[in-house]
Amino acid sequence: MKELDVSAVWRLLRPEVLAWAVAEHEGKRSICPVGWTMRTSMTPPMMAVSVAPSRFTHGLIEGAGAFVLAYPGRELAQATAYCGSHSGRDVDKFGEAGVTARPGRRVAAPVIAECVANLECRVVDRFTTGDHSIFVGEVVAAWGREDPGALLCLVDESAGYETVLKDERFRFGVVRG
Amino acid sequence: MKELDVSAVWRLLRPEVLAWAVAEHEGKRSICPVGWTMRTSMTPPMMAVSVAPSRFTHGLIEGAGAFVLAYPGRELAQATAYCGSHSGRDVDKFGEAGVTARPGRRVAAPVIAECVANLECRVVDRFTTGDHSIFVGEVVAAWGREDPGALLCLVDESAGYETVLKDERFRFGVVRG
Repeated sequence: MKELDVSAVWRLLRPEVLAWAVAEHEGKRSICPVGWTMRTSMTPPMMAVSVAPSRFTHGLIEGAGAFVLAYPGRELAQATAYCGSHSGRDVDKFGEAGVTARPGRRVAAPVIAECVANLECRVVDRFTTGDHSIFVGEVVAAWGREDPGALLCLVDESAGYETVLKDERFRFGVVRG
Repeated sequence: MKELDVSAVWRLLRPEVLAWAVAEHEGKRSICPVGWTMRTSMTPPMMAVSVAPSRFTHGLIEGAGAFVLAYPGRELAQATAYCGSHSGRDVDKFGEAGVTARPGRRVAAPVIAECVANLECRVVDRFTTGDHSIFVGEVVAAWGREDPGALLCLVDESAGYETVLKDERFRFGVVRG
Protein backbone atom coordinates (compact mmCIF):
# COMPACT_ATOMS: atom_id res chain seq x y z
CA MET A 1 0.00 0.00 0.00
CA LYS A 2 1.43 3.35 -1.06
CA GLU A 3 0.58 6.86 0.02
CA LEU A 4 -1.15 8.52 -2.94
CA ASP A 5 -2.99 11.71 -3.82
CA VAL A 6 -6.60 11.61 -2.66
CA SER A 7 -7.70 11.94 -6.29
CA ALA A 8 -5.72 8.80 -7.19
CA VAL A 9 -7.35 6.82 -4.39
CA TRP A 10 -10.78 8.16 -5.31
CA ARG A 11 -10.24 6.73 -8.79
CA LEU A 12 -9.89 3.29 -7.20
CA LEU A 13 -13.35 3.57 -5.64
CA ARG A 14 -15.30 2.35 -8.64
CA PRO A 15 -18.04 1.81 -9.52
CA GLU A 16 -19.75 5.00 -8.32
CA VAL A 17 -23.47 4.85 -9.11
CA LEU A 18 -24.72 8.00 -10.86
CA ALA A 19 -27.96 9.77 -10.08
CA TRP A 20 -29.70 12.89 -11.29
CA ALA A 21 -30.67 15.46 -8.68
CA VAL A 22 -33.87 16.91 -10.13
CA ALA A 23 -35.64 20.02 -8.85
CA GLU A 24 -38.19 22.61 -9.87
CA HIS A 25 -39.06 26.00 -8.40
CA GLU A 26 -41.08 28.99 -9.63
CA GLY A 27 -41.35 27.65 -13.16
CA LYS A 28 -37.66 26.75 -13.47
CA ARG A 29 -36.44 23.17 -13.45
CA SER A 30 -33.15 21.42 -13.84
CA ILE A 31 -31.21 18.17 -13.69
CA CYS A 32 -27.80 17.91 -12.02
CA PRO A 33 -25.94 14.60 -12.47
CA VAL A 34 -24.26 13.54 -9.24
CA GLY A 35 -22.20 10.63 -8.00
CA TRP A 36 -22.01 11.85 -4.42
CA THR A 37 -25.10 10.33 -2.81
CA MET A 38 -25.71 7.93 0.04
CA ARG A 39 -28.42 6.48 2.18
CA THR A 40 -28.37 8.10 5.60
CA SER A 41 -31.34 6.87 7.67
CA MET A 42 -33.42 3.70 7.70
CA THR A 43 -36.38 4.93 9.81
CA PRO A 44 -37.51 7.28 8.42
CA PRO A 45 -35.78 6.53 5.12
CA MET A 46 -33.48 9.36 4.09
CA MET A 47 -30.99 10.09 1.32
CA ALA A 48 -28.09 12.53 1.35
CA VAL A 49 -26.75 14.22 -1.78
CA SER A 50 -23.80 16.58 -2.19
CA VAL A 51 -24.39 19.48 -4.59
CA ALA A 52 -22.09 22.44 -5.27
CA PRO A 53 -23.72 25.80 -4.42
CA SER A 54 -22.79 27.13 -7.86
CA ARG A 55 -25.16 24.64 -9.48
CA PHE A 56 -28.49 26.03 -10.67
CA THR A 57 -30.15 22.94 -9.20
CA HIS A 58 -28.81 23.88 -5.73
CA GLY A 59 -30.99 27.00 -5.63
CA LEU A 60 -34.01 25.13 -6.96
CA ILE A 61 -33.70 22.50 -4.21
CA GLU A 62 -33.43 25.23 -1.57
CA GLY A 63 -36.40 27.10 -3.03
CA ALA A 64 -38.67 24.10 -3.39
CA GLY A 65 -37.54 22.24 -0.26
CA ALA A 66 -37.58 19.08 -2.34
CA PHE A 67 -35.61 17.06 -4.83
CA VAL A 68 -35.86 13.81 -6.72
CA LEU A 69 -32.97 11.40 -7.11
CA ALA A 70 -33.51 9.76 -10.49
CA TYR A 71 -31.23 6.86 -11.48
CA PRO A 72 -30.32 6.64 -15.17
CA GLY A 73 -29.61 3.42 -17.02
CA ARG A 74 -27.19 2.98 -19.93
CA GLU A 75 -29.49 4.56 -22.51
CA LEU A 76 -29.26 7.87 -20.65
CA ALA A 77 -25.46 8.18 -20.78
CA GLN A 78 -25.56 10.91 -23.42
CA ALA A 79 -28.30 12.77 -21.54
CA THR A 80 -26.21 12.55 -18.37
CA ALA A 81 -23.19 14.04 -20.15
CA TYR A 82 -25.39 16.78 -21.61
CA CYS A 83 -26.91 17.69 -18.25
CA GLY A 84 -23.47 17.70 -16.62
CA SER A 85 -22.00 20.14 -19.12
CA HIS A 86 -24.83 22.68 -19.45
CA SER A 87 -26.59 24.91 -16.95
CA GLY A 88 -30.30 24.96 -16.30
CA ARG A 89 -29.96 28.74 -16.22
CA ASP A 90 -29.51 28.67 -20.01
CA VAL A 91 -31.44 25.68 -21.31
CA ASP A 92 -34.35 23.43 -20.46
CA LYS A 93 -32.42 20.24 -19.90
CA PHE A 94 -35.50 18.04 -20.03
CA GLY A 95 -36.21 18.98 -23.64
CA GLU A 96 -32.57 18.98 -24.70
CA ALA A 97 -31.87 15.64 -23.03
CA GLY A 98 -35.07 14.18 -24.42
CA VAL A 99 -36.50 12.97 -21.14
CA THR A 100 -40.00 13.06 -19.74
CA ALA A 101 -40.76 14.88 -16.50
CA ARG A 102 -43.79 13.72 -14.57
CA PRO A 103 -45.04 15.47 -11.44
CA GLY A 104 -43.82 13.88 -8.25
CA ARG A 105 -46.62 12.34 -6.26
CA ARG A 106 -45.61 13.77 -2.89
CA VAL A 107 -43.05 16.52 -3.57
CA ALA A 108 -42.83 19.56 -5.83
CA ALA A 109 -40.10 18.04 -8.00
CA PRO A 110 -40.50 15.99 -11.16
CA VAL A 111 -39.67 12.32 -11.58
CA ILE A 112 -38.03 11.12 -14.79
CA ALA A 113 -40.10 8.54 -16.66
CA GLU A 114 -37.10 7.03 -18.49
CA CYS A 115 -35.02 6.42 -15.35
CA VAL A 116 -34.61 3.05 -13.66
CA ALA A 117 -35.72 4.37 -10.28
CA ASN A 118 -36.83 7.64 -8.69
CA LEU A 119 -36.80 8.68 -5.04
CA GLU A 120 -38.97 11.66 -4.07
CA CYS A 121 -37.25 13.51 -1.23
CA ARG A 122 -38.51 16.24 1.09
CA VAL A 123 -35.60 18.34 2.33
CA VAL A 124 -35.22 18.06 6.09
CA ASP A 125 -31.77 19.65 6.44
CA ARG A 126 -28.90 21.27 4.56
CA PHE A 127 -25.27 21.34 5.71
CA THR A 128 -22.16 22.95 4.27
CA THR A 129 -19.23 20.59 3.67
CA GLY A 130 -16.16 22.18 2.10
CA ASP A 131 -17.10 23.30 -1.41
CA HIS A 132 -20.46 21.46 -1.43
CA SER A 133 -23.75 21.32 0.45
CA ILE A 134 -25.30 18.14 1.72
CA PHE A 135 -29.05 18.09 1.26
CA VAL A 136 -30.72 15.52 3.50
CA GLY A 137 -34.06 14.35 2.17
CA GLU A 138 -36.72 12.12 3.66
CA VAL A 139 -37.83 9.68 0.99
CA VAL A 140 -41.60 10.13 0.79
CA ALA A 141 -42.26 8.19 -2.41
CA ALA A 142 -40.22 5.69 -4.43
CA TRP A 143 -40.57 4.40 -7.99
CA GLY A 144 -38.84 1.58 -9.81
CA ARG A 145 -38.93 -0.35 -13.04
CA GLU A 146 -39.88 -4.01 -12.89
CA ASP A 147 -36.94 -4.90 -15.14
CA PRO A 148 -34.48 -2.20 -14.11
CA GLY A 149 -31.32 -3.32 -15.89
CA ALA A 150 -27.93 -1.97 -14.93
CA LEU A 151 -27.42 1.48 -13.42
CA LEU A 152 -25.15 3.98 -15.10
CA CYS A 153 -21.93 4.37 -13.09
CA LEU A 154 -18.55 6.00 -13.12
CA VAL A 155 -16.32 3.06 -14.04
CA ASP A 156 -12.73 2.33 -14.88
CA GLU A 157 -11.09 0.12 -17.52
CA SER A 158 -11.66 -3.14 -15.63
CA ALA A 159 -13.00 -6.02 -17.69
CA GLY A 160 -16.21 -6.26 -15.66
CA TYR A 161 -17.54 -2.98 -17.03
CA GLU A 162 -18.86 -2.02 -20.43
CA THR A 163 -17.90 1.56 -21.18
CA VAL A 164 -20.91 3.37 -22.62
CA LEU A 165 -19.52 6.90 -23.03
CA LYS A 166 -16.23 8.53 -22.18
CA ASP A 167 -14.22 11.66 -22.75
CA GLU A 168 -11.09 13.03 -21.11
CA ARG A 169 -12.99 13.86 -17.90
CA PHE A 170 -15.18 10.83 -17.26
CA ARG A 171 -15.94 7.24 -18.18
CA PHE A 172 -19.59 6.20 -17.88
CA GLY A 173 -20.42 2.54 -18.01
CA VAL A 174 -22.41 -0.34 -16.63
CA VAL A 175 -21.59 -3.62 -14.97
CA ARG A 176 -21.63 -6.24 -17.75
CA GLY A 177 -24.83 -8.30 -17.83
CA MET B 1 -42.38 2.52 -13.46
CA LYS B 2 -44.31 1.43 -10.38
CA GLU B 3 -44.60 2.98 -6.96
CA LEU B 4 -42.75 0.70 -4.55
CA ASP B 5 -41.57 0.57 -0.95
CA VAL B 6 -38.40 2.56 -0.42
CA SER B 7 -36.64 -0.64 0.63
CA ALA B 8 -37.56 -2.27 -2.69
CA VAL B 9 -36.15 0.65 -4.66
CA TRP B 10 -33.03 0.72 -2.49
CA ARG B 11 -32.45 -2.92 -3.48
CA LEU B 12 -32.29 -1.77 -7.12
CA LEU B 13 -29.43 0.60 -6.31
CA ARG B 14 -26.64 -1.93 -6.64
CA PRO B 15 -23.71 -2.18 -6.47
CA GLU B 16 -23.12 -0.33 -3.19
CA VAL B 17 -19.39 -0.19 -2.41
CA LEU B 18 -18.60 -1.30 1.13
CA ALA B 19 -16.14 0.40 3.44
CA TRP B 20 -14.98 -0.08 7.01
CA ALA B 21 -15.26 2.91 9.32
CA VAL B 22 -12.26 2.40 11.62
CA ALA B 23 -11.61 4.36 14.82
CA GLU B 24 -9.59 4.21 18.02
CA HIS B 25 -9.93 6.15 21.28
CA GLU B 26 -8.47 5.71 24.76
CA GLY B 27 -7.13 2.24 24.03
CA LYS B 28 -10.33 0.96 22.40
CA ARG B 29 -10.61 0.40 18.68
CA SER B 30 -13.24 -0.95 16.33
CA ILE B 31 -14.32 -1.57 12.75
CA CYS B 32 -17.84 -0.80 11.54
CA PRO B 33 -18.71 -1.99 8.01
CA VAL B 34 -20.73 0.65 6.16
CA GLY B 35 -22.24 1.09 2.73
CA TRP B 36 -23.46 4.61 3.38
CA THR B 37 -20.52 6.77 2.34
CA MET B 38 -19.99 9.47 -0.26
CA ARG B 39 -17.52 12.07 -1.38
CA THR B 40 -18.71 15.51 -0.31
CA SER B 41 -16.04 18.11 -1.16
CA MET B 42 -13.32 18.37 -3.78
CA THR B 43 -11.26 21.23 -2.23
CA PRO B 44 -10.47 20.37 0.48
CA PRO B 45 -11.21 16.68 -0.17
CA MET B 46 -13.86 15.37 2.22
CA MET B 47 -15.78 12.17 2.78
CA ALA B 48 -19.14 11.71 4.51
CA VAL B 49 -20.14 8.52 6.29
CA SER B 50 -23.40 7.62 8.01
CA VAL B 51 -23.04 5.69 11.28
CA ALA B 52 -25.78 4.74 13.73
CA PRO B 53 -25.24 6.25 17.21
CA SER B 54 -25.71 2.80 18.79
CA ARG B 55 -22.50 1.60 17.13
CA PHE B 56 -19.43 1.38 19.34
CA THR B 57 -17.42 2.94 16.51
CA HIS B 58 -19.67 6.03 16.64
CA GLY B 59 -18.39 6.96 20.10
CA LEU B 60 -14.79 6.23 19.13
CA ILE B 61 -15.04 8.58 16.14
CA GLU B 62 -16.52 11.29 18.35
CA GLY B 63 -13.87 10.79 21.00
CA ALA B 64 -10.90 10.73 18.64
CA GLY B 65 -12.20 13.30 16.16
CA ALA B 66 -10.95 11.03 13.42
CA PHE B 67 -11.79 7.95 11.39
CA VAL B 68 -10.36 5.91 8.57
CA LEU B 69 -12.42 4.61 5.67
CA ALA B 70 -10.79 1.33 4.67
CA TYR B 71 -12.05 -0.43 1.53
CA PRO B 72 -12.05 -4.23 1.63
CA GLY B 73 -11.55 -6.48 -1.37
CA ARG B 74 -13.10 -9.91 -1.89
CA GLU B 75 -10.75 -11.71 0.49
CA LEU B 76 -12.18 -9.67 3.39
CA ALA B 77 -15.82 -10.69 2.88
CA GLN B 78 -15.81 -12.98 5.92
CA ALA B 79 -14.08 -10.33 8.03
CA THR B 80 -16.69 -7.80 6.92
CA ALA B 81 -19.51 -10.11 7.97
CA TYR B 82 -17.79 -10.74 11.30
CA CYS B 83 -17.29 -7.05 12.02
CA GLY B 84 -20.89 -6.31 11.05
CA SER B 85 -22.34 -8.87 13.45
CA HIS B 86 -20.20 -8.27 16.56
CA SER B 87 -19.61 -5.24 18.75
CA GLY B 88 -16.24 -3.70 19.49
CA ARG B 89 -17.49 -3.38 23.07
CA ASP B 90 -17.09 -7.15 23.44
CA VAL B 91 -14.26 -8.21 21.16
CA ASP B 92 -11.14 -6.88 19.48
CA LYS B 93 -12.33 -7.08 15.90
CA PHE B 94 -8.84 -6.68 14.46
CA GLY B 95 -7.64 -9.88 16.02
CA GLU B 96 -10.86 -11.79 15.40
CA ALA B 97 -11.07 -10.65 11.79
CA GLY B 98 -7.39 -11.36 11.26
CA VAL B 99 -6.44 -7.94 9.94
CA THR B 100 -3.44 -5.74 10.60
CA ALA B 101 -3.88 -2.25 12.05
CA ARG B 102 -1.12 0.25 11.31
CA PRO B 103 -1.04 3.72 12.83
CA GLY B 104 -2.50 6.36 10.57
CA ARG B 105 0.10 8.84 9.38
CA ARG B 106 -1.94 11.97 10.10
CA VAL B 107 -4.88 10.93 12.29
CA ALA B 108 -5.35 8.96 15.49
CA ALA B 109 -7.10 6.07 13.75
CA PRO B 110 -5.53 2.93 12.30
CA VAL B 111 -5.35 2.01 8.63
CA ILE B 112 -5.92 -1.60 7.59
CA ALA B 113 -2.95 -3.11 5.80
CA GLU B 114 -5.01 -5.76 3.96
CA CYS B 115 -7.50 -3.29 2.48
CA VAL B 116 -7.44 -2.04 -1.11
CA ALA B 117 -7.43 1.61 -0.08
CA ASN B 118 -7.52 3.70 3.10
CA LEU B 119 -8.59 7.31 3.58
CA GLU B 120 -7.45 9.03 6.79
CA CYS B 121 -10.13 11.53 7.80
CA ARG B 122 -10.10 14.30 10.38
CA VAL B 123 -13.65 14.99 11.60
CA VAL B 124 -14.76 18.51 10.71
CA ASP B 125 -18.48 18.15 11.46
CA ARG B 126 -21.18 15.79 12.66
CA PHE B 127 -24.86 16.03 11.79
CA THR B 128 -27.89 14.03 12.89
CA THR B 129 -29.97 12.53 10.07
CA GLY B 130 -32.91 10.40 11.17
CA ASP B 131 -31.54 7.33 12.93
CA HIS B 132 -27.92 7.97 11.89
CA SER B 133 -25.17 10.57 12.22
CA ILE B 134 -23.21 11.89 9.28
CA PHE B 135 -19.55 12.35 10.09
CA VAL B 136 -17.83 14.70 7.66
CA GLY B 137 -14.09 14.13 7.45
CA GLU B 138 -11.37 16.01 5.65
CA VAL B 139 -9.15 13.47 3.91
CA VAL B 140 -5.66 14.24 5.19
CA ALA B 141 -3.86 11.13 3.90
CA ALA B 142 -4.76 8.48 1.33
CA TRP B 143 -3.36 5.01 0.66
CA GLY B 144 -3.91 2.59 -2.17
CA ARG B 145 -2.65 -0.69 -3.56
CA GLU B 146 -0.92 -0.64 -6.91
CA ASP B 147 -3.01 -3.59 -8.07
CA PRO B 148 -6.22 -2.96 -6.14
CA GLY B 149 -8.53 -5.56 -7.65
CA ALA B 150 -12.28 -5.34 -7.21
CA LEU B 151 -13.93 -3.69 -4.22
CA LEU B 152 -16.32 -5.64 -2.06
CA CYS B 153 -19.89 -4.45 -2.66
CA LEU B 154 -23.46 -5.15 -1.79
CA VAL B 155 -24.67 -6.84 -4.98
CA ASP B 156 -27.73 -8.59 -6.35
CA GLU B 157 -28.18 -11.72 -8.45
CA SER B 158 -27.26 -10.06 -11.75
CA ALA B 159 -24.84 -11.97 -13.96
CA GLY B 160 -22.20 -9.25 -13.78
CA TYR B 161 -21.43 -9.97 -10.14
CA GLU B 162 -19.69 -12.84 -8.45
CA THR B 163 -21.29 -13.51 -5.08
CA VAL B 164 -18.57 -14.00 -2.48
CA LEU B 165 -20.64 -14.42 0.69
CA LYS B 166 -24.32 -14.26 1.43
CA ASP B 167 -26.87 -15.01 4.09
CA GLU B 168 -30.51 -14.07 4.54
CA ARG B 169 -29.62 -10.44 5.29
CA PHE B 170 -26.95 -9.55 2.74
CA ARG B 171 -25.15 -10.57 -0.42
CA PHE B 172 -21.52 -9.49 -0.70
CA GLY B 173 -19.81 -9.74 -4.05
CA VAL B 174 -17.53 -8.17 -6.59
CA VAL B 175 -17.88 -7.05 -10.17
CA ARG B 176 -16.61 -9.96 -12.30
CA GLY B 177 -13.08 -9.45 -13.59
